[in-house]
Amino acid sequence: MSELALQAEKLDAADDLAPLRNRFVLDDVVYLDGNSLGALPAHVPDRVADVVRRQWGELRIRSWDESGWWTAPERIGDRIAPLVGAAAGQIVVGDSTSVNVFKALVAAVRMSDETRTKTRTKTRTKTRTKTRTEILVDATTFPTDGYIAESAARMTGRTLRAVTPEEVPAALSDRTAAVLLNHVDYRTGRLHDLPSLTAAIHEAGALSVWDLCHSAGALEVGLDEHGVDLAVGCTYKYLNGGPGSPAYLYVRRDLQPRFDSPLPGWNSHTDPFGMSPSYTPAPGALRGRVGTPDILSMLALEAALEIWDDVSISTVRTKSLALTDFFLRCVRAYTEPGRVESVTPERHGERGSQIALRCPDAGEVMRRLITRGVVGDFRHPDILRFGFTPLYVTFTDTERAARILSEELA
Amino acid sequence: MSELALQAEKLDAADDLAPLRNRFVLDDVVYLDGNSLGALPAHVPDRVADVVRRQWGELRIRSWDESGWWTAPERIGDRIAPLVGAAAGQIVVGDSTSVNVFKALVAAVRMSDETRTKTRTKTRTKTRTKTRTEILVDATTFPTDGYIAESAARMTGRTLRAVTPEEVPAALSDRTAAVLLNHVDYRTGRLHDLPSLTAAIHEAGALSVWDLCHSAGALEVGLDEHGVDLAVGCTYKYLNGGPGSPAYLYVRRDLQPRFDSPLPGWNSHTDPFGMSPSYTPAPGALRGRVGTPDILSMLALEAALEIWDDVSISTVRTKSLALTDFFLRCVRAYTEPGRVESVTPERHGERGSQIALRCPDAGEVMRRLITRGVVGDFRHPDILRFGFTPLYVTFTDTERAARILSEELA
Repeated sequence: MSELALQAEKLDAADDLAPLRNRFVLDDVVYLDGNSLGALPAHVPDRVADVVRRQWGELRIRSWDESGWWTAPERIGDRIAPLVGAAAGQIVVGDSTSVNVFKALVAAVRMSDETRTKTRTKTRTKTRTKTRTEILVDATTFPTDGYIAESAARMTGRTLRAVTPEEVPAALSDRTAAVLLNHVDYRTGRLHDLPSLTAAIHEAGALSVWDLCHSAGALEVGLDEHGVDLAVGCTYKYLNGGPGSPAYLYVRRDLQPRFDSPLPGWNSHTDPFGMSPSYTPAPGALRGRVGTPDILSMLALEAALEIWDDVSISTVRTKSLALTDFFLRCVRAYTEPGRVESVTPERHGERGSQIALRCPDAGEVMRRLITRGVVGDFRHPDILRFGFTPLYVTFTDTERAARILSEELA
Repeated sequence: MSELALQAEKLDAADDLAPLRNRFVLDDVVYLDGNSLGALPAHVPDRVADVVRRQWGELRIRSWDESGWWTAPERIGDRIAPLVGAAAGQIVVGDSTSVNVFKALVAAVRMSDETRTKTRTKTRTKTRTKTRTEILVDATTFPTDGYIAESAARMTGRTLRAVTPEEVPAALSDRTAAVLLNHVDYRTGRLHDLPSLTAAIHEAGALSVWDLCHSAGALEVGLDEHGVDLAVGCTYKYLNGGPGSPAYLYVRRDLQPRFDSPLPGWNSHTDPFGMSPSYTPAPGALRGRVGTPDILSMLALEAALEIWDDVSISTVRTKSLALTDFFLRCVRAYTEPGRVESVTPERHGERGSQIALRCPDAGEVMRRLITRGVVGDFRHPDILRFGFTPLYVTFTDTERAARILSEELA
């Protein structure tokens, strides 16, 4: 056994999170694709079966009340809240990430119309309302955010400008209505500086919309602490909610009265069963709801989130960094220098929970890795992407993945 | 046994659809709320269990290809297509009804911009493009359609006018961009004349958007035959897809190249894994997709739709009318004249698959009915609503419901 393999065993033995692995359905595969689809928590199948057989099959329509179906979006939102540093009452679950980006960005632009700009003349300070004409979007974003931002800009009569997160501070002006950014870059795994970027956006009088798809469940987000305005995220990656489980929308409490949804479905009405022909939005986070929630997908997610009852995000983050550090160390030890290049930052403060390695034959290498039981994914055109879910990935997995990778690269 | 009860037994004995009841999980309850949440098909729990345990738990990310997750929205759309009279390749499943109303109505308005108006001068026929400034919406609609139509109007710079379906022909003009109508009224059960209303809308050069929530799975729709432009519907009523199962969107084939979605998520991109920063819509119905589909809810629906392999909609419609006729007959025989008033049309051509009875104490009456095992629902302020799903409601159920209703009304 190599020294790194021995060290992996020691690290696993000292890992407080190690027992959690047994709460997931896993096999001999080294699963480093939890940042695409999280593994199945072992208790979820029975819970889903109960939802189907008893709640739907036996109680039928009564389950909207008796099984808590109707309140699931806000109840599950409150379960996600502590994982992203939010107090209760600010998150609802439902719809896809793309749909939530649309809600958040349009609402942010509309709020920016109400943002007053102070101008000082010789004798006094005048407050005036000025339309902010521009939306900034992360040029390195997962594509759907950019497509949806384009639509939000078109439908609110704004222009859209793509800039990298690094360029945001210089691009901000009193024309900026809202900025849509990714907390962690889906391709490179780079973690962006949410606190300072949010502060810069606020300094310019604009609103921030953060996409947390690749950070929630892997590292601290601190939405409330850093004064983020709106945020969205998916639940099927580090939150293990299942394939296509519903996304979520965070609207900071003090902004909720001004949240003006472009998708004001009946589930966001203050009295949905009053069947009024005129729309009056519900108070609070509920106005982020739209239509009837997809209960099977939603309650699978609710069950999956129970894993977090006994886990702190800071412990998860510590292990995540230890795993990615160890992976990089093993890759460097095992692989010919220059064969792959890590595009994920070395600095912990700039790293999410994945390692992205660039090599010209990445597509073919990933295909071979998968046949050998190491599952990551390929991102066009030349990225090998390995996601590390601290709830179930071990250091032994990590060493094995690096070793098999080096064999396939040789 | 009363004569009507005897007759119910005879009608059940002669019912070709009677064996289908065993394919659903039902108990002693008379379930007349399938127009709110369809009953559970008996084979669905095992299918969902397989999706969770094997497809998610064992295959994990591979299921996007190997279990056909990625293509589920259009594959399931093609299963729904024959039920609403559409050829394959025109329907995708996903998102809620509300979200699909938004997509359909905004896209319809955008298409109307391209509709040319012919004007004749003394010497020649001139073709010019004119912005159509008005959206018409069914004033009697289920509220969410009205709320979403208001948003669609606001975001496309149109005005919205609510008119009853009967008033539509007179309200149409060369200002009309699009008309959003319900095929069957959720409250009264009135079936609107889709062929003639669609023809009138086309005559005015406008586009029709039909909401099929209360007709699909209960009666013939004939989307292709009648040249409907766009349509949406839910799948958890007469299609028995499960609580909050995803809705669908129909875009007539020749309009698909002009379908310009307000929610252009990455799932509607022509090359979604190319990760291009610029959006190029997929050809065909796929451009109605948005984000990652909610696989558990979606594949439960797919399983539920297998029931329809052996059933024709025309047989279902025939039984539906026989059931509602028989229910009205029993109610009249058992109940003091004037105690309830049916607001559902007598004429078959104007009736959906429900009976709505008005009485001042409807809320209290429905509560008592439910405790006695007859489940319908109450619609504010004074409607008792009874839905008849021909796949599993029997004539014996129907007679019993009317009898117990009469006792509670006495």
